[in-house]
Amino acid sequence: MSAGSDLTLYSYFRSSAAFRVRIALNLKGLKADMRFVHLLKDGGAQHGSDYQKINPLELVPSLVDHGQVISQSLAILEYLEEQVPEPPLLPRDAGARARVRQIALSIACDIHPLNNLRVQQYLKAQLSADDQARIAWQLHWMRLGFDALESLLHDDPATGVFCHGDRPTFADICLVPQMTNARRIQMNLSSYPTLLRIEEAAYRLPAFVAARPENQPDAE
Amino acid sequence: MSAGSDLTLYSYFRSSAAFRVRIALNLKGLKADMRFVHLLKDGGAQHGSDYQKINPLELVPSLVDHGQVISQSLAILEYLEEQVPEPPLLPRDAGARARVRQIALSIACDIHPLNNLRVQQYLKAQLSADDQARIAWQLHWMRLGFDALESLLHDDPATGVFCHGDRPTFADICLVPQMTNARRIQMNLSSYPTLLRIEEAAYRLPAFVAARPENQPDAE
Repeated sequence: MSAGSDLTLYSYFRSSAAFRVRIALNLKGLKADMRFVHLLKDGGAQHGSDYQKINPLELVPSLVDHGQVISQSLAILEYLEEQVPEPPLLPRDAGARARVRQIALSIACDIHPLNNLRVQQYLKAQLSADDQARIAWQLHWMRLGFDALESLLHDDPATGVFCHGDRPTFADICLVPQMTNARRIQMNLSSYPTLLRIEEAAYRLPAFVAARPENQPDAE
Repeated sequence: MSAGSDLTLYSYFRSSAAFRVRIALNLKGLKADMRFVHLLKDGGAQHGSDYQKINPLELVPSLVDHGQVISQSLAILEYLEEQVPEPPLLPRDAGARARVRQIALSIACDIHPLNNLRVQQYLKAQLSADDQARIAWQLHWMRLGFDALESLLHDDPATGVFCHGDRPTFADICLVPQMTNARRIQMNLSSYPTLLRIEEAAYRLPAFVAARPENQPDAE
């Protein structure tokens, strides 16, 4: 795979999982043909039969490389890392790699899926949770996750300018979009100085800026 | 790291994330010193200050290797794979690895975290969801996930005796414990012939059998 290779990314500007993959592609200097899947219009294009054929999980993002569809943002990140090793988005040492993956997965497994659109829709339709209850739900899981992350990152000498050392890794690629989700519901982030500092460092890199939801062609 | 190395696993017999790590350790022929974290007794030992010091995420499992704590089951699996390459639990080819990770993550991100104990507790306490509503919630996310997995696996020539080819991988290590969770709430699994066939194949291997919840020293 090279910078000129035949990649297609199915994305939605507001999807934080798609945001992760957009950052990784930018950091690797890869260009993908972008296809937009509107998660809200007409009941959600991700549930339409066209997209279902591409990804039966009915979630974005999906990356297509020479006909192979890869979904799950962290599977895509690992794939890009294996196919295009430079610049590396994981450290070299196995212990350090484990630390980075642990941070990334604590966001990708234990914060994000609980606050996903489909969960919000279920809470509203099946459990009659009103706006306030749904905001409280989102804040609860983000706070639990961010509290743990701040504590993991704050006093660890392995933390540098970024979550691990001075170069962006999978951990930052997961953290920054999650911060965007937190801001969308006006979460107070003042208890997370380390997370805020890392977010600021990330936005000094064009790869993170260009991947932001508001900078996507499908942004509303 | 060798079979005689100094590993400690914090586990709970019923945790399906810990179940994954137990299978991986068994497949790799690794022995870990087991510590048991009772997720229900006295409000949950995972929230106690002793365990919080080990893992501020307050979730099991955690693996400790020479003082480094690694949490998040898939980070642990990747670490074991890097440290003890044989027998491999990921295929060699990058596209195949992506397929295996996609299956594993679709369970670890999009099914399991939604049905976790802490989510059940929140649904009950904060949203007054009764037993029936909470079972319906669990069945909903498992069905969505299993429907997609059955469709991904059923007609794909890459599926073999196991999710990918004829040797167990991360995908089977995630699938089998999720099937156990499904059985615990009496989910009807008859629409998932491929998943059932793979589960049956897995239980022909002692590594999967020994890792089952009922075969743990802390089983009740």
